[in-house]
Amino acid sequence: MVLAPSVSSSITARLEVRARPTAVSDLTTAIERAGGIVTALDVTASFHETMTVDVTCATRDTEHAADVVAALEGLDGVVVQRVSDRTFLMHLGGKLSIESKVPLRNRDDLSMAYTPGVARVCQAIAEHPEDARRLTIKRNTIAVVTDGTAVLGMGDIGPLAALPVMEGKAVLFKRFADIDAFPICLDTTDVDRIVETVVAIAPAFAGINLEDISAPRCFEIERRLREQLDIPVFHDDQHGTAIVVVAALTNALQVVGKRIGDVRVVMSGAGAAGTAVLKLLLAAGVRDVVVADIEGVIHRDRPGLGRALRWTAEATNYRGVTGTLRDAVVGADVFIGLSAPDVLTGDDVARMAPDSIVFALANPRPEVDPDDASRYAAVVGTGRSDFANQINNVLAFPGVFRGLLDARSRTVTDAMLLAAAQALASVVHPDELNPTYIVPSVFNAEATTAVAAAVRTAAGAEADAAAPRPDTGAIAAVRRFTGA
Amino acid sequence: MVLAPSVSSSITARLEVRARPTAVSDLTTAIERAGGIVTALDVTASFHETMTVDVTCATRDTEHAADVVAALEGLDGVVVQRVSDRTFLMHLGGKLSIESKVPLRNRDDLSMAYTPGVARVCQAIAEHPEDARRLTIKRNTIAVVTDGTAVLGMGDIGPLAALPVMEGKAVLFKRFADIDAFPICLDTTDVDRIVETVVAIAPAFAGINLEDISAPRCFEIERRLREQLDIPVFHDDQHGTAIVVVAALTNALQVVGKRIGDVRVVMSGAGAAGTAVLKLLLAAGVRDVVVADIEGVIHRDRPGLGRALRWTAEATNYRGVTGTLRDAVVGADVFIGLSAPDVLTGDDVARMAPDSIVFALANPRPEVDPDDASRYAAVVGTGRSDFANQINNVLAFPGVFRGLLDARSRTVTDAMLLAAAQALASVVHPDELNPTYIVPSVFNAEATTAVAAAVRTAAGAEADAAAPRPDTGAIAAVRRFTGA
Repeated sequence: MVLAPSVSSSITARLEVRARPTAVSDLTTAIERAGGIVTALDVTASFHETMTVDVTCATRDTEHAADVVAALEGLDGVVVQRVSDRTFLMHLGGKLSIESKVPLRNRDDLSMAYTPGVARVCQAIAEHPEDARRLTIKRNTIAVVTDGTAVLGMGDIGPLAALPVMEGKAVLFKRFADIDAFPICLDTTDVDRIVETVVAIAPAFAGINLEDISAPRCFEIERRLREQLDIPVFHDDQHGTAIVVVAALTNALQVVGKRIGDVRVVMSGAGAAGTAVLKLLLAAGVRDVVVADIEGVIHRDRPGLGRALRWTAEATNYRGVTGTLRDAVVGADVFIGLSAPDVLTGDDVARMAPDSIVFALANPRPEVDPDDASRYAAVVGTGRSDFANQINNVLAFPGVFRGLLDARSRTVTDAMLLAAAQALASVVHPDELNPTYIVPSVFNAEATTAVAAAVRTAAGAEADAAAPRPDTGAIAAVRRFTGA
Repeated sequence: MVLAPSVSSSITARLEVRARPTAVSDLTTAIERAGGIVTALDVTASFHETMTVDVTCATRDTEHAADVVAALEGLDGVVVQRVSDRTFLMHLGGKLSIESKVPLRNRDDLSMAYTPGVARVCQAIAEHPEDARRLTIKRNTIAVVTDGTAVLGMGDIGPLAALPVMEGKAVLFKRFADIDAFPICLDTTDVDRIVETVVAIAPAFAGINLEDISAPRCFEIERRLREQLDIPVFHDDQHGTAIVVVAALTNALQVVGKRIGDVRVVMSGAGAAGTAVLKLLLAAGVRDVVVADIEGVIHRDRPGLGRALRWTAEATNYRGVTGTLRDAVVGADVFIGLSAPDVLTGDDVARMAPDSIVFALANPRPEVDPDDASRYAAVVGTGRSDFANQINNVLAFPGVFRGLLDARSRTVTDAMLLAAAQALASVVHPDELNPTYIVPSVFNAEATTAVAAAVRTAAGAEADAAAPRPDTGAIAAVRRFTGA
């Protein structure tokens, strides 16, 4: 499986070209021979002897882009004047801005937005802290928190290099759920310090989205933050993935006509995502599940199990399966990979039960070649956008936080996650459902609204119970004066 | 000095009024008798027997607003339907939003702003961390950090109640200097934890603006952060105030024809602002300065001096003055108050040297009634917007950070602060200068640009020296691909 050229590694070259009948075809031929794909070409100026051409093409990566440029430079009568990388151009200066929602045209505006008027707003919050959710950015603001230890497929690249991803996440929160998200990139990998730091900065936020923190540290960080904070803490790599996998599995089972309580599930991967998916599968009604990691199938008698794997061993594998992952998938109905490239082959998939379901989510190289898997499995899903059935967290996290914020929830519970998964599954209508369409497109607006509504409903009762507040005294005055 | 009604405590009442010839004048008369000031009145609907009137009026505070509403309710034939507080309305939902600067219209956009394209940007920063200033929000983003212990005149109201002020500060940063500022409200008052927290979240920021942290903790926090961070740390209550006071004093001395090295200065207040002003006065060339706090004049032999006051005693008061503040101001050329209301009277000002200068900056009640002071002093300045010569930090901090960010400065030095003060003073042109115009208006755009240019120049040499970076290898490739 060779990586194809991608617009995500797209360059635009400005060329000065000697005018001749084959001028343009010489360029496009050279780019195609070098393995690039031309996506746009403009002759921006033409003179008697020369012309200026802007050509944009997709390449595989930075090195390949350099090869393509070298091929153009090697052409007779072509001078490369400038090369721009569209992705880098998009990131220049960062992808977020912080904007004022209030005008400051004159002294009157200043006296209301800032001193002295702001003091009355502060006093109202000092007397009734819960009013911060009405009178400050806390109403709609969350933190996207990372320590940069497990960023995409790159591993521990540190907090600063992780910032473009966290900004991207904030862009997604805004685009899909109108949430104000701010990146918090932590210059520490110490669990105690991470917990203390997030607790210390929590007042301005109504939710914490943990992101790209390596396992097993992420489990303890999440657990301790949930204990200490009165706002929901969500680890997207875990819970976002779990929601989309359970939604996809729900619909894939519909396609093949099997029931969730009846199927044999085998998972590869017992890290952050794997563990969270496992827990939500169990909550969703899966009974027969076997988990393997790099050392093979996890079972009660396997030596050297740590705390997390001990839990996994006890919660799964009631048939006492041992051996390798490849042994375990024989006869299985469902394979879910959240681990590493190429741990299975098409032949392994062939040995699964009839009408099998394969979710191979390692990215960019899945656990099994999706084309090979498709020859034997009834339904195949990956994390990639260039295959059908992309299992993409973007389908979950914006809606989950929209629902949590709208409900003013102080927690996020398994019941909310399961409600989110069921709502996401239901976005694919019965008459749309087929083996290549088990999850909606990331640009399907219904995904976020359906997930948000489900989470809001699930969170609603808890939030109401947690905030029984008499509407008297100063707060009544505030309410009255804001007409709310 | 009774507080006057202010638009910062302005209400809009919607009234149903029985139609009659004196209907409107009855309303305005009632409001004026109750001490309110009508600023707008609209008849929004008129029927045969009744009409609907929206009336907006300035009041002194929330209680006074309630009195005004009660006066309206007491009128025959008037029903108060709804009352809105304009200040609260302005703050509803918070004053900031976080916006995406990049479009996400389709999969191609997604693949560049987020995975997989973003990975190449992360890799570039991992290899060359300094490039975060080009490829992320770090280029233009600062943190406004508080623990809520010394908020405006309200004291220790906590981090959540401080949030509206920090948001307001961020609004000012955006409005006056196009800086992206985000409020960090810390749920701890422990110096160690504050320092650790700010250090931990620093990667995404290019500067730290400390705000409303009580003395003497703020000194140690600032000092330790400056030691540990490679971005500038500025405590606006200290350094912003110092810049504007020194700028104002520079111009006031021009007005009265005295030289900074010759004048006798007496200060009231040895807290955060007082100490910072003192240091910048000394850097600006003041030689004869005496500082008093609540226990009287600070001198070397005063018992019980702590570390900070010991420094003050040794750096000032070379004539060995002792006694009270009121004793010390006799014969002084300049009084600068950064302390508490009403510590001096007009008679005290009368005993100062001829052509004296009085800056009474306690807010909202100054150290001496400005009207009384004006009877004897040649130049009077306050922190209030309703008197001439408002010494307002807004004149300094936006420009200071604009200059620091533009220079990619890693520090902020006394030389930069002094350059800022001199630049701010120069914004008032010689032909504009007079006893009631020694500092520009906060809406004078030249203030920010002049301060920014001065700080940028002062910071430039240091920043250049700190970042000698060969333009080779991968970074050269990045540069080339972004056309930069």
